[in-house]
Amino acid sequence: MSAYDEFTAHIAKINDLCCVLNLLTWDSRTQMPEGGTETRGHQISTVAGVAQEMFTNPKTLQLIDAAEKEVAGEPEDSYRVRAVKYAREHYEIARRIPASVVTELNELKSMSQAVWIEARQKNDFKMFAPYLAKMVGLQQKIAEAIGYKEHPYDALLVRYEPGMTARRLKELFAELKAGLTPILERAKAYPEARHDFLTERIYPADKQKAFATEISRKFGYDFDRGRIDLTVHPFEISFTRQDVRITTRYDEKYAPQALFGLFHETGHGLYEQGADPAITRTALATDLLDLYAVAGTSYGAHEAQSRLWENLVGRSEVFWKNQFPLLQSYFPEQLKDVDAEAFYRAVNRVKPSLVRTESDEITYNFHIMIRVEIEMGLLDGTISIEKLPEIWKAKYEEYLGVTPPNDTLGALQDIHWSSGLFGSFCTYTIGNIMSAQFYEAALKQNPEIKPALEKGEYKPLLDWLTENVYRHGHAFLPDELLQRSTGSKLNTGPYLRYLTEKFDLLFPHK
Amino acid sequence: MSAYDEFTAHIAKINDLCCVLNLLTWDSRTQMPEGGTETRGHQISTVAGVAQEMFTNPKTLQLIDAAEKEVAGEPEDSYRVRAVKYAREHYEIARRIPASVVTELNELKSMSQAVWIEARQKNDFKMFAPYLAKMVGLQQKIAEAIGYKEHPYDALLVRYEPGMTARRLKELFAELKAGLTPILERAKAYPEARHDFLTERIYPADKQKAFATEISRKFGYDFDRGRIDLTVHPFEISFTRQDVRITTRYDEKYAPQALFGLFHETGHGLYEQGADPAITRTALATDLLDLYAVAGTSYGAHEAQSRLWENLVGRSEVFWKNQFPLLQSYFPEQLKDVDAEAFYRAVNRVKPSLVRTESDEITYNFHIMIRVEIEMGLLDGTISIEKLPEIWKAKYEEYLGVTPPNDTLGALQDIHWSSGLFGSFCTYTIGNIMSAQFYEAALKQNPEIKPALEKGEYKPLLDWLTENVYRHGHAFLPDELLQRSTGSKLNTGPYLRYLTEKFDLLFPHK
Repeated sequence: MSAYDEFTAHIAKINDLCCVLNLLTWDSRTQMPEGGTETRGHQISTVAGVAQEMFTNPKTLQLIDAAEKEVAGEPEDSYRVRAVKYAREHYEIARRIPASVVTELNELKSMSQAVWIEARQKNDFKMFAPYLAKMVGLQQKIAEAIGYKEHPYDALLVRYEPGMTARRLKELFAELKAGLTPILERAKAYPEARHDFLTERIYPADKQKAFATEISRKFGYDFDRGRIDLTVHPFEISFTRQDVRITTRYDEKYAPQALFGLFHETGHGLYEQGADPAITRTALATDLLDLYAVAGTSYGAHEAQSRLWENLVGRSEVFWKNQFPLLQSYFPEQLKDVDAEAFYRAVNRVKPSLVRTESDEITYNFHIMIRVEIEMGLLDGTISIEKLPEIWKAKYEEYLGVTPPNDTLGALQDIHWSSGLFGSFCTYTIGNIMSAQFYEAALKQNPEIKPALEKGEYKPLLDWLTENVYRHGHAFLPDELLQRSTGSKLNTGPYLRYLTEKFDLLFPHK
Repeated sequence: MSAYDEFTAHIAKINDLCCVLNLLTWDSRTQMPEGGTETRGHQISTVAGVAQEMFTNPKTLQLIDAAEKEVAGEPEDSYRVRAVKYAREHYEIARRIPASVVTELNELKSMSQAVWIEARQKNDFKMFAPYLAKMVGLQQKIAEAIGYKEHPYDALLVRYEPGMTARRLKELFAELKAGLTPILERAKAYPEARHDFLTERIYPADKQKAFATEISRKFGYDFDRGRIDLTVHPFEISFTRQDVRITTRYDEKYAPQALFGLFHETGHGLYEQGADPAITRTALATDLLDLYAVAGTSYGAHEAQSRLWENLVGRSEVFWKNQFPLLQSYFPEQLKDVDAEAFYRAVNRVKPSLVRTESDEITYNFHIMIRVEIEMGLLDGTISIEKLPEIWKAKYEEYLGVTPPNDTLGALQDIHWSSGLFGSFCTYTIGNIMSAQFYEAALKQNPEIKPALEKGEYKPLLDWLTENVYRHGHAFLPDELLQRSTGSKLNTGPYLRYLTEKFDLLFPHK
């Protein structure tokens, strides 16, 4: 066995264990009877411990060293070179975080999540505050262990969006704020589009599923390597490209939740299913820091695909021109007095709200900016836990002109902080930005994509994305991937162009 | 941490991994899209390797030694003493089998299963013969490694029915043959009971599921710690007592398959759900030889529970007197011209057949005897692979008076030999024998059970079984368990009494 093959065989086992961890999670969120909760926790913790030991074992470094020697001189962007490089980077970061901190984090997570659930129910921020304080302290400790030049947030970003920094995020957000505020102001001046047919009529779940499944299939999601299940909080998860599962929930009183939710998860699924078979069970299909089987190169890059299929494709006028008759065939009664144009306008309403997950394409980014600014402040000490609720309110008033009536609809809204996911919120907006960069580049580089989309054919778009993005797994960092496929690093130009063009038509300058 | 606690913590991790292996299997047989087959194989193999290494590591022996010292002097039948004893026994056997043989077996299994599937389709025994020859050779090698006094079969039985030997099996089979042959001959002299309503009417799958679920619940299966799923070859599997899943398939043209199938799997499920919470994640809830999470003490003891609930309860006259109206409420059209008595007679038809899985309470045991006699002959060299098909035919003619027209319906019928399960067939009949011992003892010891059964109440019976059998896990070997709970070791008395009484009424002496 060559040194590279030995390295690959070792990582393959770690990937297997990551796939197993993903299955344990998927099962617990879609199938497991309630009684299994506690013992499932032990099972996850045991497998995670084995995988962690296997990866951080000094043997891994020896294998990396030997493999590196073997691939020296091979093309710098080959998968072999990249797999070794990526494994080394993650190995070095993982080794910097003391095992005791990992244990402490896992223990704190499960406690603080439980407290957060209760605090949110009781609208009692003070109850959650001490756990959040501990969590911030632990995140600061992790940031110190990983190391950073300017801001502790930079160290945490390594896990979610490698290459990103607090400084650059602030610049991107400033550009977005400048570009989006006038659109939002204009939209607010218009009366809300008609949407009684979405909010006052019942859409049976089985029909929602049938329609969304048909669209997933049209997008190119392969049901021989995937399936759709019910869950409370929808997600996509994979156990190699050969088995990529998406989940959803159905609200019979508000169908767009499941429909766009499934377009969204389909986008995540297409990324995973599109990984090059050559990277199956390699480092390039594994998040070795989080011990998570995933081919997407960053949270932002992944979110870019879900947003691209949900919004740029699924919320476009041409999409509904093509697919509205199909939707109507599933819901003839509910949609008897509606046409494609009215439906398109209804699912593109813009309206500031209190809740991130209920927001629209424009306001979504403001919800994110608020959270990221607060996260950075908590980490660098410029925002105290006690002041957090009032700062949250003030920012919502400033950015969106709405005032949370309580903390349940305010600072207690999201699970992320209780779960230790400091640094992940920004990837939602990074995904939005990237989605437009990929989409614009695809349409520019392949002139057949646009006419295909106009006919309701999605294969040329999927092919471009697979060739330029999906197949590479973790071979390239987000900016490298963008540079190679679009000619530019992350920038807000295409996203602002896309939103301006779309919403100028929906809410014309008067 | 005490030595015993350290031992327990180590075994708990191995149990976690066994639960994970069980989940990987359950998922692959109920949920997994086809594309996942190959990578799932890698995942199973990696986790099995880790669990195997963890158990056979010399560290395990040190922990066993230290724990044994700590529990010395405690009651001989305490769970603590038993857990250490059982772990040591399995450790010693596991260490005797060379790792190379385990690898060889796993590789041969997957190959020979694939060949068996094709050979069965093509009715080509010669195609399968070389793989079967290799498998017999490997099983002989394993038997030599484990060690035995009289017959290589004894060594293989350790895995499935500890304490059982070829010699004792032959005695039990001789008793059964003598007792069952006259019943079978008498049954054959009667015309077959009316059963057109079972074979010529359609029973929708969802109604079958609803009825069987209601019965499972009445038997005491806890759906907060379990669920029912669809599969091709039904089975029960658990991931601790807290999560015990059963599976089924529905034949709309022949409802008894799913109905009795679900009673059967419910019986397995009740055994696992009934384990004492104190043995969760301990050796007493783990098959440490097969790295399989299971609380049942042997294959036979487990089968005894499935047979008890399927046959002694579910195929009894009093059961259908109570539950037939419920069945009729689900299938009013299909059963409009049928009463409880007719239904009872229809599901207790006795008729020699070619296929084990389609046989009845009487003939089932003959199917098993034939297989076990052949297995023993293959292992001790008195039967050659080439002669196997004709020996199979001759035995079917002798025991059941039927002649397989081909090997697909003959020696190629079962998956067991291609899967290396030499020694497991006998446990089906051992389960039958044991089921009647437990049932007779329960009714004798608690006089409330019989009147309860007459009212369609199953809790007193379940309580007796839980208290005397289910809760103990692997604490006692089958014969110890029988001795403690029924006052006798394994013996055919109660089973022959049960069958004689039942079938004397169905097929009276003329």
